[in-house]
Amino acid sequence: MRNIILVIEYDGTNYNGWQAQEKYPSIQEEIEKAIFKATKEKVKLKAAGRTDARVHALGQVANFFTTSNIPGDKFRFVLNNELPDDIRVQSSQEVDHTFNARFSATHKRYRYRIFNGLVERPLIRNFSYHVTYQLDVEKMRQAANDFIGTFDYKSFRGRRSSIKTSIRTVYSVDIKQKGEMIDIIVEGNSFLRNMVRIMVGTLIEIGAGLRPADSIPWTIKQENRNCAGHTAPAQGLFLEKVFYK
Amino acid sequence: MRNIILVIEYDGTNYNGWQAQEKYPSIQEEIEKAIFKATKEKVKLKAAGRTDARVHALGQVANFFTTSNIPGDKFRFVLNNELPDDIRVQSSQEVDHTFNARFSATHKRYRYRIFNGLVERPLIRNFSYHVTYQLDVEKMRQAANDFIGTFDYKSFRGRRSSIKTSIRTVYSVDIKQKGEMIDIIVEGNSFLRNMVRIMVGTLIEIGAGLRPADSIPWTIKQENRNCAGHTAPAQGLFLEKVFYK
Repeated sequence: MRNIILVIEYDGTNYNGWQAQEKYPSIQEEIEKAIFKATKEKVKLKAAGRTDARVHALGQVANFFTTSNIPGDKFRFVLNNELPDDIRVQSSQEVDHTFNARFSATHKRYRYRIFNGLVERPLIRNFSYHVTYQLDVEKMRQAANDFIGTFDYKSFRGRRSSIKTSIRTVYSVDIKQKGEMIDIIVEGNSFLRNMVRIMVGTLIEIGAGLRPADSIPWTIKQENRNCAGHTAPAQGLFLEKVFYK
Repeated sequence: MRNIILVIEYDGTNYNGWQAQEKYPSIQEEIEKAIFKATKEKVKLKAAGRTDARVHALGQVANFFTTSNIPGDKFRFVLNNELPDDIRVQSSQEVDHTFNARFSATHKRYRYRIFNGLVERPLIRNFSYHVTYQLDVEKMRQAANDFIGTFDYKSFRGRRSSIKTSIRTVYSVDIKQKGEMIDIIVEGNSFLRNMVRIMVGTLIEIGAGLRPADSIPWTIKQENRNCAGHTAPAQGLFLEKVFYK
């Protein structure tokens, strides 16, 4: 058996997320179907991070085992021929048997895009969160620093999560503003369900003056989802890059 | 009767272009339906430039006459409430009776976006033209200058055009490169059917080394569509701005 790694970009707009689910189209299922067409093997594709419905990826990473003799770097061509146009393998290669897209990852980078303008913009509607009240980006930057470190992130965990520990390490939260676009770039070792989206929703409420800029340490300490802000919508989120040793 | 001007952004992906046509959804028809819902009047909306199927607009301009007493600047809110999410009025106002979105325009700016990378990118597939062979942008810039001026642009006119004169004035053709993205920005007094897309297709063939960089004057002089390059696909084109006195 050979272990193949794929780096994948997708537009999540028309999918119910990464994970295969009955009745709903998923990214995982589309790629597994493409692998089946290429190799006649039913594989189980494992991703670095399962993205939710309508979340996008610039650099999702997944791996699978195969007995096929297609060279590792050729899987890109072969699978892209079979995939729908909103999913494309950016690169493929054969890796060591011990590699696991999820457990071998050292950290991940997510990007969340906010459009902070008055009138909705059709061209970016599926790739940003439209926030109409004027955000104070300096206040958001000040608050963002308080996420950096190792904390119990229970307050920033989506409901219906069954993960045992909610302790996570956030390495950086950078906020870049260009005109009416605000990007929040978060790096961390791993993330809880909806964690980035709740962090962003909370930072937006700080930027709008609805919460104090120094309230993040208090919010973390409560270990209570009700104490954090709203969950920013899925279409603004991008899994940008997964890092390995 | 009052004359109302609208500035409109739209994602043209799911439309058969600006103009209302039997059986196919059009931008014009969607906006006329929204105006009908708001005013109970069947109006005829006139646009500055009719965009083709899958072409986008950042600043399309259109006007219509109404007896409604909705204040000019309120049409934006009223129509956006009725419009599908891929069309949004960016601003609205009442103007003089003599204003005509098409004939009052002094010039227009189009933007054409090329993605010059190896692997298809799902996130920009509906908003760019994917060209895989490496383009020489300096050669394209050199060639682009030869479009500037007043010429008979018959070689750059799409078939099935019934316009009498094909003499047009091009004011500027700027090419901006940022990583793998190349934007070609064209300003002119008015444009023939498919003119920008044929100009772009020809520039791409020059950038790919398939045509000499100094061939544009010859191509214009032939006054023959067969002598110009291919028509670049619709999804890379944006009507960016319409200018008025």
